[in-house]
Amino acid sequence: MSGSSQDRAIDFYFDFSSPYSYIASEWIEALAARHARTVRWHAVLLGALFQPAELRPPVAHPIKREYVMRDFARSARFAGVPYQQPAQFPIPTQNAARVFCWLHGRDPAQAVSWAHAALRGYFARNVPLNDPVALRSLVQEAGVNPDEAEAAWSDPVWKECLKRENDAASALGVFGAPFFRIDGEPFWGHDRQAQMDRWLSMGPY
Amino acid sequence: MSGSSQDRAIDFYFDFSSPYSYIASEWIEALAARHARTVRWHAVLLGALFQPAELRPPVAHPIKREYVMRDFARSARFAGVPYQQPAQFPIPTQNAARVFCWLHGRDPAQAVSWAHAALRGYFARNVPLNDPVALRSLVQEAGVNPDEAEAAWSDPVWKECLKRENDAASALGVFGAPFFRIDGEPFWGHDRQAQMDRWLSMGPY
Repeated sequence: MSGSSQDRAIDFYFDFSSPYSYIASEWIEALAARHARTVRWHAVLLGALFQPAELRPPVAHPIKREYVMRDFARSARFAGVPYQQPAQFPIPTQNAARVFCWLHGRDPAQAVSWAHAALRGYFARNVPLNDPVALRSLVQEAGVNPDEAEAAWSDPVWKECLKRENDAASALGVFGAPFFRIDGEPFWGHDRQAQMDRWLSMGPY
Repeated sequence: MSGSSQDRAIDFYFDFSSPYSYIASEWIEALAARHARTVRWHAVLLGALFQPAELRPPVAHPIKREYVMRDFARSARFAGVPYQQPAQFPIPTQNAARVFCWLHGRDPAQAVSWAHAALRGYFARNVPLNDPVALRSLVQEAGVNPDEAEAAWSDPVWKECLKRENDAASALGVFGAPFFRIDGEPFWGHDRQAQMDRWLSMGPY
Protein backbone atom coordinates (compact mmCIF):
# COMPACT_ATOMS: atom_id res chain seq x y z
CA MET A 1 0.00 0.00 0.00
CA SER A 2 1.29 3.47 -0.80
CA GLY A 3 1.96 6.13 1.83
CA SER A 4 -1.12 8.08 0.91
CA SER A 5 -3.42 5.07 1.25
CA GLN A 6 -1.85 4.45 4.66
CA ASP A 7 -2.76 8.03 5.63
CA ARG A 8 -6.32 7.16 4.71
CA ALA A 9 -6.32 4.50 7.45
CA ILE A 10 -8.76 4.94 10.32
CA ASP A 11 -6.97 4.96 13.67
CA PHE A 12 -8.94 2.87 16.17
CA TYR A 13 -7.99 3.03 19.87
CA PHE A 14 -9.49 0.32 22.06
CA ASP A 15 -9.13 -1.04 25.59
CA PHE A 16 -9.53 -4.76 26.36
CA SER A 17 -11.70 -3.98 29.41
CA SER A 18 -14.05 -1.54 27.63
CA PRO A 19 -17.49 -2.86 26.55
CA TYR A 20 -17.98 0.04 24.15
CA SER A 21 -14.56 -0.74 22.58
CA TYR A 22 -15.70 -4.34 22.09
CA ILE A 23 -18.91 -3.21 20.37
CA ALA A 24 -16.96 -0.90 18.04
CA SER A 25 -14.39 -3.62 17.31
CA GLU A 26 -17.21 -5.65 15.79
CA TRP A 27 -18.17 -3.02 13.19
CA ILE A 28 -15.05 -0.92 12.55
CA GLU A 29 -13.58 -3.17 9.82
CA ALA A 30 -16.88 -3.33 7.91
CA LEU A 31 -17.33 0.45 8.17
CA ALA A 32 -13.81 1.03 6.84
CA ALA A 33 -14.23 -1.51 4.03
CA ARG A 34 -17.48 0.14 2.83
CA HIS A 35 -15.44 3.30 2.29
CA ALA A 36 -12.32 1.63 0.87
CA ARG A 37 -10.36 2.49 4.01
CA THR A 38 -8.18 0.38 6.26
CA VAL A 39 -7.99 0.31 10.05
CA ARG A 40 -4.93 0.82 12.24
CA TRP A 41 -5.66 -0.84 15.59
CA HIS A 42 -4.12 0.63 18.76
CA ALA A 43 -4.42 -1.17 22.11
CA VAL A 44 -4.44 1.38 24.94
CA LEU A 45 -4.97 1.27 28.70
CA LEU A 46 -7.86 3.50 29.76
CA GLY A 47 -6.51 3.75 33.30
CA ALA A 48 -3.34 5.36 31.96
CA LEU A 49 -5.25 7.65 29.56
CA PHE A 50 -7.59 8.85 32.32
CA GLN A 51 -4.76 10.15 34.51
CA PRO A 52 -3.56 13.09 32.34
CA ALA A 53 -7.20 13.90 31.49
CA GLU A 54 -8.16 13.88 35.20
CA LEU A 55 -10.96 11.40 34.45
CA ARG A 56 -12.33 8.33 36.21
CA PRO A 57 -14.08 5.33 34.63
CA PRO A 58 -17.88 5.69 34.33
CA VAL A 59 -18.40 2.74 36.68
CA ALA A 60 -16.52 4.64 39.42
CA HIS A 61 -19.50 7.01 39.73
CA PRO A 62 -22.30 5.16 41.58
CA ILE A 63 -25.34 6.65 39.76
CA LYS A 64 -23.60 6.57 36.37
CA ARG A 65 -22.48 2.99 36.97
CA GLU A 66 -26.07 1.80 37.25
CA TYR A 67 -26.89 3.41 33.91
CA VAL A 68 -23.84 2.27 31.96
CA MET A 69 -24.12 -1.34 33.14
CA ARG A 70 -27.57 -1.31 31.55
CA ASP A 71 -26.41 0.63 28.51
CA PHE A 72 -23.49 -1.73 27.78
CA ALA A 73 -25.83 -4.68 27.23
CA ARG A 74 -28.53 -2.65 25.47
CA SER A 75 -26.01 -1.01 23.12
CA ALA A 76 -24.59 -4.44 22.28
CA ARG A 77 -28.09 -5.79 21.49
CA PHE A 78 -28.77 -2.68 19.41
CA ALA A 79 -25.56 -3.31 17.44
CA GLY A 80 -26.35 -7.03 17.10
CA VAL A 81 -23.24 -8.03 19.04
CA PRO A 82 -23.33 -10.99 21.51
CA TYR A 83 -22.74 -9.67 25.03
CA GLN A 84 -22.57 -11.20 28.48
CA GLN A 85 -21.64 -8.89 31.35
CA PRO A 86 -18.36 -10.33 32.70
CA ALA A 87 -18.52 -11.54 36.31
CA GLN A 88 -15.42 -9.52 37.19
CA PHE A 89 -15.52 -6.02 35.72
CA PRO A 90 -13.50 -3.98 35.11
CA ILE A 91 -10.26 -5.98 35.28
CA PRO A 92 -6.59 -5.18 34.55
CA THR A 93 -5.94 -6.15 30.93
CA GLN A 94 -2.36 -5.06 30.37
CA ASN A 95 -1.22 -8.62 29.63
CA ALA A 96 -3.71 -8.96 26.77
CA ALA A 97 -2.60 -5.53 25.52
CA ARG A 98 1.09 -6.46 25.67
CA VAL A 99 0.38 -9.60 23.64
CA PHE A 100 -1.29 -7.31 21.10
CA CYS A 101 1.80 -5.05 20.96
CA TRP A 102 4.11 -8.03 20.55
CA LEU A 103 2.02 -9.58 17.75
CA HIS A 104 1.53 -6.21 16.05
CA GLY A 105 5.27 -5.84 15.70
CA ARG A 106 5.50 -8.99 13.59
CA ASP A 107 2.07 -9.22 11.93
CA PRO A 108 -0.67 -6.59 12.34
CA ALA A 109 -3.34 -8.97 10.99
CA GLN A 110 -2.50 -11.55 13.64
CA ALA A 111 -2.65 -8.83 16.29
CA VAL A 112 -6.17 -7.91 15.11
CA SER A 113 -7.21 -11.57 15.25
CA TRP A 114 -5.94 -11.66 18.82
CA ALA A 115 -7.84 -8.47 19.69
CA HIS A 116 -11.08 -10.05 18.43
CA ALA A 117 -10.38 -13.30 20.28
CA ALA A 118 -9.66 -11.54 23.58
CA LEU A 119 -12.55 -9.04 23.39
CA ARG A 120 -15.03 -11.78 22.42
CA GLY A 121 -13.61 -14.07 25.09
CA TYR A 122 -14.07 -11.48 27.82
CA PHE A 123 -17.36 -9.90 26.75
CA ALA A 124 -19.21 -12.84 25.20
CA ARG A 125 -17.82 -15.87 27.09
CA ASN A 126 -16.76 -14.46 30.47
CA VAL A 127 -13.08 -15.43 30.04
CA PRO A 128 -11.15 -13.48 32.72
CA LEU A 129 -8.28 -11.86 30.80
CA ASN A 130 -6.54 -11.04 34.09
CA ASP A 131 -6.08 -14.75 34.87
CA PRO A 132 -2.81 -16.03 33.32
CA VAL A 133 -4.15 -19.59 32.92
CA ALA A 134 -7.31 -18.42 31.14
CA LEU A 135 -5.26 -16.02 29.05
CA ARG A 136 -2.89 -18.79 27.94
CA SER A 137 -5.84 -20.96 26.86
CA LEU A 138 -7.34 -18.09 24.90
CA VAL A 139 -4.00 -17.37 23.24
CA GLN A 140 -3.72 -21.02 22.21
CA GLU A 141 -7.28 -21.04 20.81
CA ALA A 142 -6.28 -17.99 18.77
CA GLY A 143 -3.45 -19.98 17.19
CA VAL A 144 -0.62 -18.30 19.07
CA ASN A 145 2.03 -20.14 21.09
CA PRO A 146 1.12 -19.62 24.78
CA ASP A 147 4.71 -19.87 26.03
CA GLU A 148 5.80 -17.16 23.61
CA ALA A 149 2.78 -15.04 24.58
CA GLU A 150 3.50 -15.36 28.30
CA ALA A 151 7.15 -14.50 27.67
CA ALA A 152 5.95 -11.43 25.75
CA TRP A 153 3.58 -10.16 28.41
CA SER A 154 6.34 -10.58 31.03
CA ASP A 155 8.95 -8.83 28.89
CA PRO A 156 9.74 -5.16 29.73
CA VAL A 157 10.12 -4.54 25.98
CA TRP A 158 6.36 -5.00 25.39
CA LYS A 159 5.46 -3.23 28.59
CA GLU A 160 7.44 -0.27 27.30
CA CYS A 161 5.89 -0.61 23.83
CA LEU A 162 2.40 -0.36 25.35
CA LYS A 163 3.43 2.64 27.43
CA ARG A 164 4.76 4.40 24.31
CA GLU A 165 1.50 3.66 22.47
CA ASN A 166 -0.48 5.13 25.38
CA ASP A 167 1.68 8.24 25.58
CA ALA A 168 1.38 8.77 21.84
CA ALA A 169 -2.41 8.40 22.00
CA SER A 170 -2.66 10.80 24.92
CA ALA A 171 -0.50 13.35 23.08
CA LEU A 172 -3.01 13.17 20.18
CA GLY A 173 -5.90 13.98 22.53
CA VAL A 174 -7.17 10.44 23.10
CA PHE A 175 -8.84 10.37 26.55
CA GLY A 176 -11.29 7.47 26.25
CA ALA A 177 -12.12 4.34 24.26
CA PRO A 178 -13.21 3.54 21.70
CA PHE A 179 -11.60 6.56 20.10
CA PHE A 180 -11.11 7.07 16.37
CA ARG A 181 -9.16 9.44 14.16
CA ILE A 182 -10.14 9.83 10.52
CA ASP A 183 -8.06 12.23 8.43
CA GLY A 184 -6.96 13.70 11.78
CA GLU A 185 -10.57 14.29 12.93
CA PRO A 186 -11.27 12.82 16.40
CA PHE A 187 -14.40 10.77 17.16
CA TRP A 188 -15.04 9.41 20.66
CA GLY A 189 -17.46 6.59 21.42
CA HIS A 190 -19.18 3.72 19.66
CA ASP A 191 -22.12 6.12 19.33
CA ARG A 192 -20.24 8.27 16.81
CA GLN A 193 -20.60 5.54 14.16
CA ALA A 194 -23.19 7.50 12.12
CA GLN A 195 -21.07 10.67 12.22
CA MET A 196 -18.02 8.69 11.11
CA ASP A 197 -20.03 7.11 8.29
CA ARG A 198 -21.03 10.55 7.09
CA TRP A 199 -17.46 11.86 7.28
CA LEU A 200 -16.25 8.85 5.28
CA SER A 201 -19.00 9.33 2.67
CA MET A 202 -18.98 13.06 2.24
CA GLY A 203 -15.77 14.40 3.81
CA PRO A 204 -15.54 17.13 6.45
CA TYR A 205 -18.82 18.72 7.57
CA MET B 1 -55.50 12.89 27.73
CA SER B 2 -56.11 9.72 29.71
CA GLY B 3 -53.79 8.50 32.44
CA SER B 4 -52.42 5.72 30.27
CA SER B 5 -51.57 8.04 27.40
CA GLN B 6 -49.82 10.30 29.93
CA ASP B 7 -47.75 7.30 31.04
CA ARG B 8 -46.70 6.90 27.44
CA ALA B 9 -45.08 10.34 27.57
CA ILE B 10 -41.32 10.55 27.03
CA ASP B 11 -39.59 12.29 29.94
CA PHE B 12 -36.98 14.69 28.59
CA TYR B 13 -34.48 16.26 31.02
CA PHE B 14 -32.51 19.21 29.68
CA ASP B 15 -30.18 21.93 30.96
CA PHE B 16 -30.17 25.44 29.45
CA SER B 17 -26.36 25.49 29.33
CA SER B 18 -25.95 22.07 27.65
CA PRO B 19 -25.23 22.02 23.89
CA TYR B 20 -26.25 18.36 23.62
CA SER B 21 -29.56 19.20 25.37
CA TYR B 22 -30.14 21.94 22.80
CA ILE B 23 -29.51 19.51 19.92
CA ALA B 24 -31.94 16.97 21.42
CA SER B 25 -34.55 19.67 22.07
CA GLU B 26 -34.69 20.21 18.31
CA TRP B 27 -35.67 16.60 17.49
CA ILE B 28 -37.41 15.19 20.57
CA GLU B 29 -40.92 16.42 19.66
CA ALA B 30 -40.70 15.03 16.10
CA LEU B 31 -39.38 11.71 17.39
CA ALA B 32 -42.23 11.44 19.89
CA ALA B 33 -44.86 12.46 17.29
CA ARG B 34 -43.68 9.78 14.84
CA HIS B 35 -44.51 7.23 17.51
CA ALA B 36 -47.74 8.86 18.75
CA ARG B 37 -46.07 9.80 22.01
CA THR B 38 -45.95 13.08 23.89
CA VAL B 39 -43.00 14.72 25.66
CA ARG B 40 -42.80 15.86 29.29
CA TRP B 41 -40.07 18.50 29.47
CA HIS B 42 -38.04 18.84 32.69
CA ALA B 43 -35.58 21.70 33.17
CA VAL B 44 -32.71 20.59 35.41
CA LEU B 45 -29.40 22.08 36.56
CA LEU B 46 -26.48 19.88 35.61
CA GLY B 47 -24.33 21.39 38.33
CA ALA B 48 -26.77 20.15 40.96
CA LEU B 49 -27.13 16.72 39.31
CA PHE B 50 -23.36 16.24 39.09
CA GLN B 51 -22.84 16.60 42.85
CA PRO B 52 -24.58 13.41 44.07
CA ALA B 53 -23.09 11.52 41.09
CA GLU B 54 -19.57 12.83 41.91
CA LEU B 55 -19.21 14.06 38.35
CA ARG B 56 -17.75 17.19 36.76
CA PRO B 57 -18.73 18.81 33.46
CA PRO B 58 -16.81 17.50 30.40
CA VAL B 59 -15.32 20.95 29.80
CA ALA B 60 -13.70 20.80 33.27
CA HIS B 61 -11.29 18.16 31.97
CA PRO B 62 -8.67 19.90 29.76
CA ILE B 63 -8.14 17.17 27.13
CA LYS B 64 -11.84 16.26 27.03
CA ARG B 65 -12.79 19.92 26.75
CA GLU B 66 -10.87 20.27 23.49
CA TYR B 67 -12.74 17.31 22.06
CA VAL B 68 -16.25 18.22 23.19
CA MET B 69 -15.97 21.83 22.02
CA ARG B 70 -15.35 20.38 18.56
CA ASP B 71 -17.98 17.69 18.96
CA PHE B 72 -20.72 20.17 20.04
CA ALA B 73 -20.54 22.01 16.72
CA ARG B 74 -20.02 18.89 14.62
CA SER B 75 -22.91 17.07 16.29
CA ALA B 76 -25.15 20.09 15.67
CA ARG B 77 -24.18 20.17 11.99
CA PHE B 78 -24.78 16.42 11.79
CA ALA B 79 -28.27 16.91 13.27
CA GLY B 80 -28.95 19.88 10.98
CA VAL B 81 -29.30 22.26 13.92
CA PRO B 82 -27.93 25.85 13.72
CA TYR B 83 -25.13 26.25 16.26
CA GLN B 84 -22.78 29.03 17.25
CA GLN B 85 -20.45 28.37 20.18
CA PRO B 86 -21.50 30.93 22.83
CA ALA B 87 -18.79 33.43 23.77
CA GLN B 88 -19.32 32.69 27.47
CA PHE B 89 -19.63 28.97 28.16
CA PRO B 90 -20.79 27.39 30.33
CA ILE B 91 -22.88 29.96 32.23
CA PRO B 92 -25.29 29.79 35.19
CA THR B 93 -28.77 29.34 33.75
CA GLN B 94 -30.94 28.96 36.84
CA ASN B 95 -32.96 32.09 35.98
CA ALA B 96 -33.99 30.67 32.61
CA ALA B 97 -34.81 27.37 34.34
CA ARG B 98 -36.94 29.08 37.00
CA VAL B 99 -38.89 30.90 34.29
CA PHE B 100 -39.49 27.46 32.77
CA CYS B 101 -40.79 26.10 36.11
CA TRP B 102 -43.06 29.10 36.58
CA LEU B 103 -44.53 28.86 33.06
CA HIS B 104 -44.85 25.08 33.29
CA GLY B 105 -47.12 25.48 36.30
CA ARG B 106 -49.65 27.47 34.29
CA ASP B 107 -49.17 26.22 30.72
CA PRO B 108 -46.73 23.43 29.77
CA ALA B 109 -46.89 24.38 26.06
CA GLN B 110 -45.80 27.93 26.85
CA ALA B 111 -42.97 26.55 28.97
CA VAL B 112 -41.79 24.46 26.01
CA SER B 113 -41.92 27.53 23.74
CA TRP B 114 -39.76 29.33 26.28
CA ALA B 115 -37.31 26.42 26.41
CA HIS B 116 -36.91 26.58 22.62
CA ALA B 117 -36.52 30.37 22.67
CA ALA B 118 -33.88 30.29 25.40
CA LEU B 119 -31.88 27.35 23.99
CA ARG B 120 -31.92 28.82 20.47
CA GLY B 121 -31.07 32.26 21.85
CA TYR B 122 -28.03 30.97 23.70
CA PHE B 123 -26.74 28.38 21.23
CA ALA B 124 -27.63 29.94 17.87
CA ARG B 125 -27.55 33.70 18.59
CA ASN B 126 -25.09 34.05 21.48
CA VAL B 127 -27.68 35.59 23.85
CA PRO B 128 -26.14 35.37 27.36
CA LEU B 129 -28.89 33.82 29.49
CA ASN B 130 -27.02 34.81 32.66
CA ASP B 131 -27.47 38.53 31.86
CA PRO B 132 -30.79 39.78 33.30
CA VAL B 133 -31.20 42.47 30.62
CA ALA B 134 -30.63 40.01 27.77
CA LEU B 135 -32.89 37.50 29.49
CA ARG B 136 -35.71 40.05 29.79
CA SER B 137 -35.46 40.85 26.07
CA LEU B 138 -35.55 37.17 25.17
CA VAL B 139 -38.57 36.62 27.43
CA GLN B 140 -40.37 39.50 25.73
CA GLU B 141 -39.54 38.16 22.26
CA ALA B 142 -41.06 34.86 23.40
CA GLY B 143 -44.33 36.62 24.19
CA VAL B 144 -43.99 36.53 27.97
CA ASN B 145 -44.21 39.58 30.23
CA PRO B 146 -40.64 40.40 31.31
CA ASP B 147 -41.65 41.96 34.66
CA GLU B 148 -43.59 38.83 35.57
CA ALA B 149 -40.69 36.66 34.41
CA GLU B 150 -38.16 38.61 36.48
CA ALA B 151 -40.46 38.42 39.51
CA ALA B 152 -40.67 34.65 38.95
CA TRP B 153 -36.91 34.05 38.69
CA SER B 154 -36.42 36.11 41.88
CA ASP B 155 -39.17 34.29 43.77
CA PRO B 156 -38.09 31.55 46.26
CA VAL B 157 -41.19 29.59 45.18
CA TRP B 158 -39.71 28.88 41.72
CA LYS B 159 -36.23 28.42 43.10
CA GLU B 160 -37.69 25.72 45.34
CA CYS B 161 -39.71 24.26 42.44
CA LEU B 162 -36.53 23.85 40.39
CA LYS B 163 -34.73 22.27 43.34
CA ARG B 164 -37.57 19.76 43.78
CA GLU B 165 -37.44 18.93 40.06
CA ASN B 166 -33.67 18.35 40.32
CA ASP B 167 -33.98 16.18 43.40
CA ALA B 168 -36.73 14.12 41.75
CA ALA B 169 -34.61 13.65 38.62
CA SER B 170 -31.56 12.64 40.65
CA ALA B 171 -33.66 10.13 42.62
CA LEU B 172 -34.66 8.56 39.29
CA GLY B 173 -31.00 8.13 38.31
CA VAL B 174 -30.64 11.20 36.08
CA PHE B 175 -26.97 12.28 36.20
CA GLY B 176 -26.54 14.16 32.92
CA ALA B 177 -28.39 15.94 30.14
CA PRO B 178 -30.04 15.37 27.83
CA PHE B 179 -31.51 12.40 29.64
CA PHE B 180 -34.67 10.56 28.63
CA ARG B 181 -36.98 8.01 30.20
CA ILE B 182 -39.29 5.96 27.98
CA ASP B 183 -41.57 3.47 29.73
CA GLY B 184 -39.14 3.77 32.65
CA GLU B 185 -36.10 2.90 30.48
CA PRO B 186 -33.26 5.44 30.82
CA PHE B 187 -31.39 6.84 27.81
CA TRP B 188 -28.53 9.31 28.27
CA GLY B 189 -27.25 11.58 25.52
CA HIS B 190 -28.37 13.02 22.20
CA ASP B 191 -26.48 10.11 20.66
CA ARG B 192 -29.05 7.60 21.94
CA GLN B 193 -31.61 8.86 19.39
CA ALA B 194 -31.40 5.72 17.23
CA GLN B 195 -31.75 3.43 20.25
CA MET B 196 -34.78 5.42 21.43
CA ASP B 197 -36.31 5.23 17.96
CA ARG B 198 -35.94 1.47 18.01
CA TRP B 199 -37.44 1.20 21.50
CA LEU B 200 -40.39 3.33 20.40
CA SER B 201 -40.89 1.25 17.24
CA MET B 202 -40.42 -2.25 18.60
CA GLY B 203 -40.57 -2.06 22.38
CA PRO B 204 -37.94 -3.36 24.81
CA TYR B 205 -34.89 -5.06 23.29
